[in-house]
Amino acid sequence: MEKVLCFDMYGTLCDTGSVKTVLAKELGVPGPFLDEINTLWRRKQLQYAYLVGLMERYRSFWEITNRALDYTLEYFHLDLNEIQRDRILEAYQHLEPFPSVPDTLELLIEHDVHLTVLSNGDLDMLQTLVENAGLSPYIKTVISAEDVQTFKPSPRVYKNAARVLERDLQECQLVSGNAWDVTGAASAGMGTIWVNRSQNPFEVLSVKPDHTVKGINELPDLLVA
Amino acid sequence: MEKVLCFDMYGTLCDTGSVKTVLAKELGVPGPFLDEINTLWRRKQLQYAYLVGLMERYRSFWEITNRALDYTLEYFHLDLNEIQRDRILEAYQHLEPFPSVPDTLELLIEHDVHLTVLSNGDLDMLQTLVENAGLSPYIKTVISAEDVQTFKPSPRVYKNAARVLERDLQECQLVSGNAWDVTGAASAGMGTIWVNRSQNPFEVLSVKPDHTVKGINELPDLLVA
Repeated sequence: MEKVLCFDMYGTLCDTGSVKTVLAKELGVPGPFLDEINTLWRRKQLQYAYLVGLMERYRSFWEITNRALDYTLEYFHLDLNEIQRDRILEAYQHLEPFPSVPDTLELLIEHDVHLTVLSNGDLDMLQTLVENAGLSPYIKTVISAEDVQTFKPSPRVYKNAARVLERDLQECQLVSGNAWDVTGAASAGMGTIWVNRSQNPFEVLSVKPDHTVKGINELPDLLVA
Repeated sequence: MEKVLCFDMYGTLCDTGSVKTVLAKELGVPGPFLDEINTLWRRKQLQYAYLVGLMERYRSFWEITNRALDYTLEYFHLDLNEIQRDRILEAYQHLEPFPSVPDTLELLIEHDVHLTVLSNGDLDMLQTLVENAGLSPYIKTVISAEDVQTFKPSPRVYKNAARVLERDLQECQLVSGNAWDVTGAASAGMGTIWVNRSQNPFEVLSVKPDHTVKGINELPDLLVA
Protein backbone atom coordinates (compact mmCIF):
# COMPACT_ATOMS: atom_id res chain seq x y z
CA MET A 1 0.00 0.00 0.00
CA GLU A 2 1.13 3.55 -0.83
CA LYS A 3 2.77 5.30 2.14
CA VAL A 4 1.05 8.49 3.35
CA LEU A 5 2.99 11.40 4.82
CA CYS A 6 1.23 14.32 6.48
CA PHE A 7 3.63 17.26 6.48
CA ASP A 8 3.28 20.06 8.92
CA MET A 9 3.70 23.39 7.13
CA TYR A 10 5.02 26.12 9.44
CA GLY A 11 8.51 25.22 10.59
CA THR A 12 8.55 21.96 8.65
CA LEU A 13 8.10 22.49 4.91
CA CYS A 14 8.38 26.28 5.16
CA ASP A 15 10.61 28.41 7.34
CA THR A 16 8.72 30.84 9.59
CA GLY A 17 12.04 32.61 10.06
CA SER A 18 11.83 33.87 6.49
CA VAL A 19 9.47 36.67 7.61
CA LYS A 20 12.57 38.37 8.99
CA THR A 21 13.39 39.72 5.54
CA VAL A 22 10.14 41.69 5.53
CA LEU A 23 10.49 42.63 9.21
CA ALA A 24 13.94 44.08 8.44
CA LYS A 25 12.58 46.16 5.59
CA GLU A 26 9.53 47.49 7.43
CA LEU A 27 11.01 47.96 10.91
CA GLY A 28 14.58 49.03 10.18
CA VAL A 29 15.90 47.58 13.44
CA PRO A 30 19.19 45.65 13.88
CA GLY A 31 19.39 41.90 13.20
CA PRO A 32 19.38 40.57 16.76
CA PHE A 33 16.15 42.48 17.47
CA LEU A 34 14.60 40.93 14.37
CA ASP A 35 15.23 37.50 15.87
CA GLU A 36 13.55 38.53 19.10
CA ILE A 37 10.58 40.06 17.30
CA ASN A 38 10.16 37.05 15.06
CA THR A 39 10.52 34.63 17.98
CA LEU A 40 7.90 36.43 20.06
CA TRP A 41 5.49 36.64 17.11
CA ARG A 42 5.80 32.92 16.48
CA ARG A 43 5.60 32.07 20.18
CA LYS A 44 2.42 34.12 20.64
CA GLN A 45 0.93 32.60 17.48
CA LEU A 46 1.45 29.12 18.93
CA GLN A 47 0.26 30.14 22.39
CA TYR A 48 -2.89 31.75 20.98
CA ALA A 49 -3.66 28.60 19.00
CA TYR A 50 -3.30 26.48 22.16
CA LEU A 51 -5.35 28.95 24.21
CA VAL A 52 -8.32 29.28 21.87
CA GLY A 53 -8.25 25.50 21.43
CA LEU A 54 -8.37 24.89 25.16
CA MET A 55 -10.88 27.73 25.67
CA GLU A 56 -13.11 26.21 22.98
CA ARG A 57 -13.17 29.56 21.18
CA TYR A 58 -11.87 28.75 17.74
CA ARG A 59 -10.63 31.57 15.52
CA SER A 60 -9.05 31.29 12.11
CA PHE A 61 -5.28 30.88 12.04
CA TRP A 62 -5.05 34.08 10.03
CA GLU A 63 -6.79 35.92 12.86
CA ILE A 64 -4.49 34.22 15.41
CA THR A 65 -1.43 35.24 13.39
CA ASN A 66 -2.78 38.78 13.16
CA ARG A 67 -3.45 39.09 16.88
CA ALA A 68 -0.04 37.59 17.73
CA LEU A 69 1.50 40.31 15.55
CA ASP A 70 -0.56 42.97 17.40
CA TYR A 71 0.81 41.70 20.70
CA THR A 72 4.37 41.62 19.43
CA LEU A 73 4.28 45.14 17.99
CA GLU A 74 2.77 46.47 21.22
CA TYR A 75 5.28 44.58 23.35
CA PHE A 76 8.23 46.09 21.49
CA HIS A 77 6.56 49.54 21.25
CA LEU A 78 6.70 49.41 17.47
CA ASP A 79 4.34 51.84 15.88
CA LEU A 80 3.51 50.95 12.28
CA ASN A 81 0.99 52.23 9.81
CA GLU A 82 -1.64 49.93 8.37
CA ILE A 83 0.25 49.39 5.10
CA GLN A 84 3.49 48.34 6.81
CA ARG A 85 1.55 46.05 9.13
CA ASP A 86 -0.23 44.37 6.24
CA ARG A 87 3.06 43.84 4.41
CA ILE A 88 4.48 42.06 7.45
CA LEU A 89 1.41 39.88 7.84
CA GLU A 90 1.43 39.09 4.14
CA ALA A 91 4.93 37.64 4.57
CA TYR A 92 3.23 34.60 6.08
CA GLN A 93 1.85 33.83 2.62
CA HIS A 94 5.33 33.91 1.12
CA LEU A 95 7.39 31.81 3.51
CA GLU A 96 10.36 30.12 1.89
CA PRO A 97 10.53 26.33 1.80
CA PHE A 98 13.57 24.92 3.56
CA PRO A 99 16.33 24.37 0.96
CA SER A 100 16.07 20.63 0.41
CA VAL A 101 12.27 20.49 0.38
CA PRO A 102 11.30 20.57 -3.33
CA ASP A 103 13.96 18.06 -4.40
CA THR A 104 13.11 15.72 -1.57
CA LEU A 105 9.38 15.84 -2.23
CA GLU A 106 10.04 15.06 -5.88
CA LEU A 107 12.15 12.06 -4.93
CA LEU A 108 9.50 10.78 -2.53
CA ILE A 109 6.83 11.00 -5.21
CA GLU A 110 9.01 9.00 -7.58
CA HIS A 111 8.92 6.31 -4.91
CA ASP A 112 5.16 6.38 -4.75
CA VAL A 113 4.77 8.18 -1.42
CA HIS A 114 1.48 10.08 -1.08
CA LEU A 115 2.32 13.61 0.14
CA THR A 116 -0.16 15.75 2.03
CA VAL A 117 -0.10 18.82 4.25
CA LEU A 118 -1.69 18.76 7.71
CA SER A 119 -1.47 22.14 9.39
CA ASN A 120 -3.09 24.55 11.81
CA GLY A 121 -3.18 27.12 9.00
CA ASP A 122 -6.50 27.95 7.33
CA LEU A 123 -7.19 26.07 4.14
CA ASP A 124 -6.84 29.17 1.96
CA MET A 125 -3.58 30.20 3.70
CA LEU A 126 -2.17 26.73 3.11
CA GLN A 127 -3.25 26.54 -0.52
CA THR A 128 -1.72 29.95 -1.21
CA LEU A 129 1.51 29.04 0.55
CA VAL A 130 1.84 25.66 -1.20
CA GLU A 131 1.44 27.53 -4.49
CA ASN A 132 3.81 30.39 -3.61
CA ALA A 133 6.47 28.02 -2.28
CA GLY A 134 6.37 26.02 -5.52
CA LEU A 135 5.14 22.87 -3.81
CA SER A 136 1.90 22.36 -5.77
CA PRO A 137 3.37 19.67 -8.04
CA TYR A 138 4.08 17.47 -5.02
CA ILE A 139 1.29 17.99 -2.50
CA LYS A 140 -1.83 15.98 -3.35
CA THR A 141 -4.07 16.95 -0.43
CA VAL A 142 -4.11 19.92 1.92
CA ILE A 143 -5.84 19.31 5.25
CA SER A 144 -6.50 22.16 7.66
CA ALA A 145 -7.33 22.09 11.37
CA GLU A 146 -10.10 24.47 10.27
CA ASP A 147 -12.15 21.38 9.32
CA VAL A 148 -12.69 20.54 12.98
CA GLN A 149 -12.52 24.10 14.38
CA THR A 150 -9.70 23.50 16.79
CA PHE A 151 -5.92 23.24 16.57
CA LYS A 152 -3.18 20.67 16.78
CA PRO A 153 -2.28 19.04 19.16
CA SER A 154 -5.99 18.22 19.68
CA PRO A 155 -6.53 14.56 18.68
CA ARG A 156 -9.53 15.70 16.61
CA VAL A 157 -7.19 17.29 14.06
CA TYR A 158 -5.11 14.15 13.48
CA LYS A 159 -8.18 11.91 13.44
CA ASN A 160 -9.84 14.14 10.88
CA ALA A 161 -6.78 13.87 8.64
CA ALA A 162 -6.98 10.08 8.67
CA ARG A 163 -10.70 10.32 7.89
CA VAL A 164 -10.10 12.66 4.94
CA LEU A 165 -7.35 10.38 3.64
CA GLU A 166 -9.52 7.29 4.17
CA ARG A 167 -6.78 5.59 6.14
CA ASP A 168 -6.35 4.31 9.64
CA LEU A 169 -4.46 6.74 11.87
CA GLN A 170 -1.50 4.40 12.21
CA GLU A 171 -1.18 4.20 8.41
CA CYS A 172 -0.44 7.96 8.28
CA GLN A 173 2.85 9.49 9.39
CA LEU A 174 3.10 13.06 10.56
CA VAL A 175 6.34 14.78 9.59
CA SER A 176 6.88 17.84 11.74
CA GLY A 177 9.62 20.16 12.91
CA ASN A 178 7.48 21.00 15.94
CA ALA A 179 8.07 18.58 18.80
CA TRP A 180 4.69 19.45 20.39
CA ASP A 181 3.00 18.51 17.09
CA VAL A 182 4.78 15.16 16.99
CA THR A 183 3.69 14.63 20.60
CA GLY A 184 0.07 15.33 19.70
CA ALA A 185 0.11 13.05 16.66
CA ALA A 186 1.77 10.18 18.56
CA SER A 187 -0.68 10.63 21.42
CA ALA A 188 -3.57 10.43 18.92
CA GLY A 189 -2.13 7.25 17.41
CA MET A 190 -0.50 8.50 14.21
CA GLY A 191 2.99 7.50 13.09
CA THR A 192 5.56 10.27 13.54
CA ILE A 193 8.80 11.61 12.16
CA TRP A 194 10.36 14.52 14.00
CA VAL A 195 12.49 16.91 11.97
CA ASN A 196 14.88 18.20 14.59
CA ARG A 197 16.91 20.77 12.69
CA SER A 198 18.16 22.60 15.79
CA GLN A 199 19.24 19.65 17.93
CA ASN A 200 16.64 20.46 20.59
CA PRO A 201 15.48 18.11 23.34
CA PHE A 202 12.18 16.39 22.52
CA GLU A 203 9.13 17.31 24.63
CA VAL A 204 9.20 15.22 27.77
CA LEU A 205 5.58 14.05 27.70
CA SER A 206 5.87 10.25 27.64
CA VAL A 207 5.44 9.73 23.89
CA LYS A 208 8.44 9.59 21.58
CA PRO A 209 8.73 10.11 17.82
CA ASP A 210 8.95 6.88 15.79
CA HIS A 211 11.84 8.45 13.90
CA THR A 212 13.96 11.56 14.18
CA VAL A 213 15.77 13.20 11.27
CA LYS A 214 17.90 16.33 11.05
CA GLY A 215 16.28 17.55 7.84
CA ILE A 216 13.61 16.70 5.27
CA ASN A 217 16.41 15.48 2.96
CA GLU A 218 16.85 12.40 5.17
CA LEU A 219 13.32 11.17 4.46
CA PRO A 220 13.95 9.16 1.27
CA ASP A 221 16.62 7.02 2.96
CA LEU A 222 14.34 6.53 5.95
CA LEU A 223 11.23 5.63 3.98
CA VAL A 224 12.37 4.03 0.76
CA ALA A 225 14.18 0.82 1.55
CA MET B 1 -23.79 39.42 49.33
CA GLU B 2 -20.20 38.64 50.25
CA LYS B 3 -17.78 39.22 47.38
CA VAL B 4 -15.81 36.17 46.18
CA LEU B 5 -12.29 36.41 44.84
CA CYS B 6 -10.59 33.45 43.16
CA PHE B 7 -6.86 34.05 43.30
CA ASP B 8 -4.51 32.40 40.88
CA MET B 9 -1.48 31.08 42.75
CA TYR B 10 1.62 30.91 40.53
CA GLY B 11 2.61 34.40 39.45
CA THR B 12 -0.26 36.02 41.36
CA LEU B 13 -0.13 35.30 45.10
CA CYS B 14 3.30 33.65 44.92
CA ASP B 15 6.32 34.55 42.84
CA THR B 16 7.55 31.74 40.57
CA GLY B 17 10.77 33.75 40.24
CA SER B 18 11.62 32.86 43.83
CA VAL B 19 12.91 29.45 42.68
CA LYS B 20 15.98 31.33 41.44
CA THR B 21 17.46 31.28 44.94
CA VAL B 22 17.55 27.49 44.87
CA LEU B 23 18.65 27.39 41.23
CA ALA B 24 21.59 29.64 42.13
CA LYS B 25 22.63 27.37 44.98
CA GLU B 26 22.33 24.10 43.06
CA LEU B 27 23.57 25.21 39.66
CA GLY B 28 26.23 27.78 40.51
CA VAL B 29 25.77 29.70 37.26
CA PRO B 30 25.74 33.50 36.90
CA GLY B 31 22.57 35.54 37.53
CA PRO B 32 21.51 36.25 33.94
CA PHE B 33 21.59 32.52 33.16
CA LEU B 34 19.37 31.89 36.17
CA ASP B 35 16.77 34.19 34.64
CA GLU B 36 16.93 32.25 31.39
CA ILE B 37 16.70 28.88 33.11
CA ASN B 38 13.82 29.99 35.28
CA THR B 39 11.98 31.57 32.33
CA LEU B 40 12.30 28.43 30.20
CA TRP B 41 11.19 26.19 33.06
CA ARG B 42 8.10 28.32 33.65
CA ARG B 43 7.37 28.62 29.92
CA LYS B 44 7.59 24.86 29.41
CA GLN B 45 5.44 24.29 32.49
CA LEU B 46 2.71 26.50 30.99
CA GLN B 47 3.11 25.02 27.52
CA TYR B 48 2.90 21.46 28.85
CA ALA B 49 -0.29 22.34 30.75
CA TYR B 50 -1.85 23.77 27.56
CA LEU B 51 -0.66 20.79 25.51
CA VAL B 52 -1.92 18.01 27.75
CA GLY B 53 -5.19 19.95 28.13
CA LEU B 54 -5.65 20.22 24.38
CA MET B 55 -4.43 16.65 23.84
CA GLU B 56 -6.94 15.43 26.43
CA ARG B 57 -4.12 13.66 28.28
CA TYR B 58 -4.28 15.12 31.76
CA ARG B 59 -1.28 14.74 34.06
CA SER B 60 -0.85 16.19 37.52
CA PHE B 61 0.68 19.65 37.70
CA TRP B 62 3.51 18.22 39.77
CA GLU B 63 4.30 15.85 36.90
CA ILE B 64 4.07 18.73 34.42
CA THR B 65 6.42 20.83 36.55
CA ASN B 66 8.78 17.90 36.79
CA ARG B 67 8.83 17.24 33.05
CA ALA B 68 9.27 20.95 32.30
CA LEU B 69 12.33 20.88 34.57
CA ASP B 70 13.66 17.81 32.70
CA TYR B 71 13.34 19.68 29.42
CA THR B 72 15.01 22.78 30.81
CA LEU B 73 17.98 20.92 32.30
CA GLU B 74 18.47 19.00 29.05
CA TYR B 75 18.15 22.16 26.96
CA PHE B 76 20.88 23.92 28.94
CA HIS B 77 23.02 20.75 29.20
CA LEU B 78 22.85 20.86 32.98
CA ASP B 79 23.73 17.57 34.54
CA LEU B 80 22.46 17.25 38.10
CA ASN B 81 22.23 14.38 40.51
CA GLU B 82 18.88 13.25 41.83
CA ILE B 83 19.26 15.08 45.15
CA GLN B 84 20.01 18.43 43.50
CA ARG B 85 17.14 17.94 41.09
CA ASP B 86 14.71 17.19 43.90
CA ARG B 87 15.82 20.26 45.82
CA ILE B 88 15.08 22.44 42.80
CA LEU B 89 11.68 20.87 42.27
CA GLU B 90 10.90 21.21 45.96
CA ALA B 91 11.39 24.98 45.61
CA TYR B 92 7.94 25.05 43.98
CA GLN B 93 6.49 24.17 47.39
CA HIS B 94 8.26 27.12 48.98
CA LEU B 95 7.55 30.00 46.63
CA GLU B 96 7.50 33.38 48.30
CA PRO B 97 4.31 35.41 48.36
CA PHE B 98 4.66 38.79 46.65
CA PRO B 99 5.49 41.41 49.34
CA SER B 100 2.10 43.05 49.81
CA VAL B 101 0.08 39.83 49.72
CA PRO B 102 -0.45 38.86 53.40
CA ASP B 103 -1.33 42.41 54.51
CA THR B 104 -3.69 42.91 51.61
CA LEU B 105 -5.48 39.61 52.15
CA GLU B 106 -5.95 40.49 55.82
CA LEU B 107 -7.45 43.85 54.87
CA LEU B 108 -9.81 42.23 52.37
CA ILE B 109 -11.05 39.76 54.97
CA GLU B 110 -11.77 42.61 57.35
CA HIS B 111 -14.04 43.93 54.65
CA ASP B 112 -15.85 40.64 54.36
CA VAL B 113 -14.39 39.46 51.07
CA HIS B 114 -14.36 35.65 50.65
CA LEU B 115 -10.86 34.64 49.53
CA THR B 116 -10.18 31.46 47.58
CA VAL B 117 -7.41 30.02 45.43
CA LEU B 118 -8.16 28.74 41.93
CA SER B 119 -5.09 27.26 40.31
CA ASN B 120 -3.72 24.71 37.88
CA GLY B 121 -1.64 23.29 40.74
CA ASP B 122 -2.62 19.98 42.30
CA LEU B 123 -4.70 20.25 45.45
CA ASP B 124 -1.89 18.96 47.68
CA MET B 125 0.67 21.31 46.05
CA LEU B 126 -1.65 24.24 46.65
CA GLN B 127 -2.46 23.34 50.23
CA THR B 128 1.24 22.95 51.03
CA LEU B 129 2.12 26.23 49.37
CA VAL B 130 -0.71 28.17 51.06
CA GLU B 131 0.62 26.83 54.36
CA ASN B 132 4.30 27.48 53.61
CA ALA B 133 3.61 30.97 52.32
CA GLY B 134 1.74 31.82 55.52
CA LEU B 135 -1.56 32.38 53.73
CA SER B 136 -3.67 29.79 55.57
CA PRO B 137 -5.33 32.37 57.84
CA TYR B 138 -6.80 34.14 54.80
CA ILE B 139 -7.67 31.50 52.20
CA LYS B 140 -10.99 29.80 52.92
CA THR B 141 -11.17 27.42 49.95
CA VAL B 142 -8.55 25.95 47.65
CA ILE B 143 -9.84 24.81 44.27
CA SER B 144 -7.62 22.87 41.89
CA ALA B 145 -7.98 22.27 38.16
CA GLU B 146 -7.34 18.65 39.19
CA ASP B 147 -11.07 18.40 40.02
CA VAL B 148 -11.94 18.42 36.32
CA GLN B 149 -8.73 16.79 35.01
CA THR B 150 -7.78 19.60 32.66
CA PHE B 151 -6.13 23.00 33.01
CA LYS B 152 -6.99 26.67 32.85
CA PRO B 153 -7.89 28.30 30.49
CA SER B 154 -10.41 25.50 29.82
CA PRO B 155 -13.88 26.85 30.73
CA ARG B 156 -14.46 23.66 32.73
CA VAL B 157 -12.00 24.83 35.38
CA TYR B 158 -13.69 28.19 35.97
CA LYS B 159 -17.18 26.64 35.88
CA ASN B 160 -16.14 24.04 38.43
CA ALA B 161 -14.91 26.78 40.76
CA ALA B 162 -18.30 28.51 40.65
CA ARG B 163 -19.97 25.16 41.31
CA VAL B 164 -17.74 24.45 44.33
CA LEU B 165 -18.39 27.95 45.68
CA GLU B 166 -22.12 27.63 45.00
CA ARG B 167 -22.17 30.89 43.10
CA ASP B 168 -22.94 31.96 39.58
CA LEU B 169 -19.83 32.42 37.46
CA GLN B 170 -20.37 36.17 37.20
CA GLU B 171 -20.51 36.47 40.99
CA CYS B 172 -16.89 35.24 41.21
CA GLN B 173 -13.89 37.32 40.23
CA LEU B 174 -10.63 35.78 39.13
CA VAL B 175 -7.55 37.72 40.23
CA SER B 176 -4.56 36.70 38.15
CA GLY B 177 -1.16 37.94 37.11
CA ASN B 178 -1.40 35.73 34.02
CA ALA B 179 -3.11 37.50 31.14
CA TRP B 180 -3.99 34.18 29.46
CA ASP B 181 -5.76 33.10 32.68
CA VAL B 182 -7.78 36.32 32.80
CA THR B 183 -8.67 35.71 29.15
CA GLY B 184 -9.90 32.22 29.94
CA ALA B 185 -11.94 33.33 32.95
CA ALA B 186 -13.53 36.22 31.06
CA SER B 187 -14.28 33.95 28.12
CA ALA B 188 -15.98 31.49 30.51
CA GLY B 189 -18.07 34.29 32.03
CA MET B 190 -16.24 35.03 35.28
CA GLY B 191 -15.42 38.54 36.49
CA THR B 192 -11.72 39.37 36.17
CA ILE B 193 -8.99 41.49 37.69
CA TRP B 194 -5.63 41.41 35.94
CA VAL B 195 -2.57 42.03 38.08
CA ASN B 196 -0.17 43.50 35.56
CA ARG B 197 3.02 43.95 37.56
CA SER B 198 5.33 44.17 34.54
CA GLN B 199 3.37 46.60 32.38
CA ASN B 200 2.86 44.02 29.65
CA PRO B 201 0.33 44.24 26.83
CA PHE B 202 -2.84 42.23 27.50
CA GLU B 203 -3.50 39.16 25.32
CA VAL B 204 -5.19 40.34 22.14
CA LEU B 205 -8.00 37.76 22.07
CA SER B 206 -11.16 39.91 22.08
CA VAL B 207 -11.92 39.74 25.80
CA LYS B 208 -10.63 42.35 28.22
CA PRO B 209 -10.16 42.27 31.99
CA ASP B 210 -12.89 44.04 33.96
CA HIS B 211 -10.16 45.73 35.97
CA THR B 212 -6.40 46.02 35.82
CA VAL B 213 -4.16 46.72 38.80
CA LYS B 214 -0.38 46.98 39.17
CA GLY B 215 -0.27 44.89 42.34
CA ILE B 216 -2.41 42.98 44.83
CA ASN B 217 -2.14 45.96 47.19
CA GLU B 218 -4.52 47.94 44.94
CA LEU B 219 -7.36 45.47 45.52
CA PRO B 220 -8.87 46.97 48.69
CA ASP B 221 -9.34 50.38 47.04
CA LEU B 222 -10.82 48.71 43.99
CA LEU B 223 -13.22 46.41 45.81
CA VAL B 224 -14.14 48.15 49.02
CA ALA B 225 -15.99 51.36 48.21
